[in-house]
Amino acid sequence: MKLEGKVLVAQGGGPTAVINQSMVGAVLESRKFSQISLVYGAINGVNGIINENFIDLTQETTHNLEQIAGTPSSALGSTRDKPDEKYCLEIFKVLQAHEIRYFFYIGGNDSADTVRIVNAYAEKSDYDFRAIHIPKTIDNDLLVNDHTPGYGSAAKFVAQAFTGVDLDNRSLPGVYIGVVMGRHAGFLTAASSLAKKYHDDGPHLIYLPERTFSLDTFLSDVQAILKKHGRCVVAVSEGISDANKVPIATTLMDRIEKDAHGNISLSGGGLGDLLARYVKEHLSVSRVRSDTFGYLQRSFPLVVSSVDQSEAREVGEKAAQFAIWYDADGSVTIHRSGDYSVDYHLTPLEKVARHTKHMPDLFINEKGNHITDDFKLYARPLVGSLPYAARLRAPTVKKVITY
Amino acid sequence: MKLEGKVLVAQGGGPTAVINQSMVGAVLESRKFSQISLVYGAINGVNGIINENFIDLTQETTHNLEQIAGTPSSALGSTRDKPDEKYCLEIFKVLQAHEIRYFFYIGGNDSADTVRIVNAYAEKSDYDFRAIHIPKTIDNDLLVNDHTPGYGSAAKFVAQAFTGVDLDNRSLPGVYIGVVMGRHAGFLTAASSLAKKYHDDGPHLIYLPERTFSLDTFLSDVQAILKKHGRCVVAVSEGISDANKVPIATTLMDRIEKDAHGNISLSGGGLGDLLARYVKEHLSVSRVRSDTFGYLQRSFPLVVSSVDQSEAREVGEKAAQFAIWYDADGSVTIHRSGDYSVDYHLTPLEKVARHTKHMPDLFINEKGNHITDDFKLYARPLVGSLPYAARLRAPTVKKVITY
Repeated sequence: MKLEGKVLVAQGGGPTAVINQSMVGAVLESRKFSQISLVYGAINGVNGIINENFIDLTQETTHNLEQIAGTPSSALGSTRDKPDEKYCLEIFKVLQAHEIRYFFYIGGNDSADTVRIVNAYAEKSDYDFRAIHIPKTIDNDLLVNDHTPGYGSAAKFVAQAFTGVDLDNRSLPGVYIGVVMGRHAGFLTAASSLAKKYHDDGPHLIYLPERTFSLDTFLSDVQAILKKHGRCVVAVSEGISDANKVPIATTLMDRIEKDAHGNISLSGGGLGDLLARYVKEHLSVSRVRSDTFGYLQRSFPLVVSSVDQSEAREVGEKAAQFAIWYDADGSVTIHRSGDYSVDYHLTPLEKVARHTKHMPDLFINEKGNHITDDFKLYARPLVGSLPYAARLRAPTVKKVITY
Repeated sequence: MKLEGKVLVAQGGGPTAVINQSMVGAVLESRKFSQISLVYGAINGVNGIINENFIDLTQETTHNLEQIAGTPSSALGSTRDKPDEKYCLEIFKVLQAHEIRYFFYIGGNDSADTVRIVNAYAEKSDYDFRAIHIPKTIDNDLLVNDHTPGYGSAAKFVAQAFTGVDLDNRSLPGVYIGVVMGRHAGFLTAASSLAKKYHDDGPHLIYLPERTFSLDTFLSDVQAILKKHGRCVVAVSEGISDANKVPIATTLMDRIEKDAHGNISLSGGGLGDLLARYVKEHLSVSRVRSDTFGYLQRSFPLVVSSVDQSEAREVGEKAAQFAIWYDADGSVTIHRSGDYSVDYHLTPLEKVARHTKHMPDLFINEKGNHITDDFKLYARPLVGSLPYAARLRAPTVKKVITY
């Protein structure tokens, strides 16, 4: 028998450039089923649910939804609330009060866990209910999934940004350090390498949270690259830490304070600023610059991977199909089925919830300061088109003055 | 009589996304004149000239030059050398030794001054020589010009970035501060407003170096916006300073050190970090974030204004025409001739050299915390297409639970 009733869609966690594709996919696909009476959206994720802040997406025009699909960041708003058991019970009570029979929650591993707990309450209460987690995270750190929607577009931004700063660094040589998002997983930082074309293109060094970061090795790495290329572009993950799991920003602050013998005059305290300062103090290079990519990398409009866009749309559509057509619960997962093609499966929520995926060893070079070709093979199809950087190849002119 | 001989092209100062359009425009246009024997490029600007580091651009394929035109940053390399009279004499001697008759230098007001001095040496020595300055700067601060090549593309990046961070801030509300390049002129920071669509879109506040920055007014401005919209996005120029012309980063550092009564523990020392910290300490808002756009904004590949691209190409081509066809010296300047169209003139070098243009009063609102519609009318045509951000308009669902 078909389960008749309302659908509720919500978005959680940090926004991505394509998270609205998933929302619109779930909404439009749900609206095609005759047993669906209404499609609601929760404002600001689970926070909107417990406060009954719903809008009626059945009354949105298809055209406007398509426009929103192309707009970055969560159109329904998001939340940083991390529901515990009691919070999830509140969610369930509201869903039940509104006679919502299908719940689609777009988010990371925390969101998957919320869906899992709410679903357990529904089962315990014998309330007929289907709940699906739709994957999303620029960190690319969800288990079971080959990769996650949102990653490809953020990766494209990072790759494109490094093409630009590397060309900049080539024209005005020195050391450049770019700090990329990713506290525990290095996938996004690793993407800095994807638009490399010539053998001496940057980033020349890539440091990931999966490897212990040593300041001494870092300095000698930079020095070796400077000697080889006369310049050095570095991609650093914000999550790098030392052997004791202490973030490098903290280690550096301590070391610089000690070096200064009490004469503290910090001109910049972020990880990038501190690393730049450390390089400047220990190596003879005058031009050292750093940028922290910050919020630009996760919702920059129009810098979107076409592959990511399609897949984000499809995981939303598949959620509606799995729940309404197949009458099933779970997490929609992406599986690579060719080079390059994907299939979507429905995976039990507990397999995706809570835990985090890391970069496999295969993707990181032996020295732990760059990525491997295996990573390139894995990630390149996910980012779509990349910029084409050209170089002059004209022959040198003979000097006529003898100095 | 036609002046026969060699052309030399060089690029100076900070790179832009379209500076290679100007270089390629000058090179290809020069190659069309029969009196031009060879077209050289200087590696790393004036530094390459005094070291005789030339490449023979006559031997570049037209196809590769076109690819390079679409590549950001200076393909010939750049330099931060600021030539004095003696340095300029060295330049002149090398040009003379290589029998260079035409010199095209792409850069800002310093580069215009270099061209002026070198040209004066040529005249004094009765050396037949034509020298042209080709305008370039993301700061948009060259005199005489309506605007400068490089600005439109950087402005497009900044406008697009603020669309993204504003959508991000809407989904996870709080205070966001974005620091934009521009030490003396606020044109680039002002561009943060260009993609605003809805009345409550950010940036809600814009602070420019043309106005004195007061920390107290800033705090009350932010508080007023928070009260009105529940969130606040701020665009700040890196060059803002207080009534005594002291940079705000310095003022803030002093104030925070004093507040801390010796217990200094700075977690971030850049202008953005300091402003964010100041807001967090003085207003009751939990989520305060800041980004410094840094190097991303001046050579991000593919985020390029089509108008800027065309004009950068044409100023390069015009330089070759003015020098070779009309046998004249000067600076190529851009003049607005309609809404929207431009003409190119040749202006005496001393009128463009050294000095800086600022945002006119007409472009800044009375409170000095935002821009006016006059600025929008001025700047909008320069950035080409901008992202289209859509919003949900669905009606609210009636609550069913009485809390």
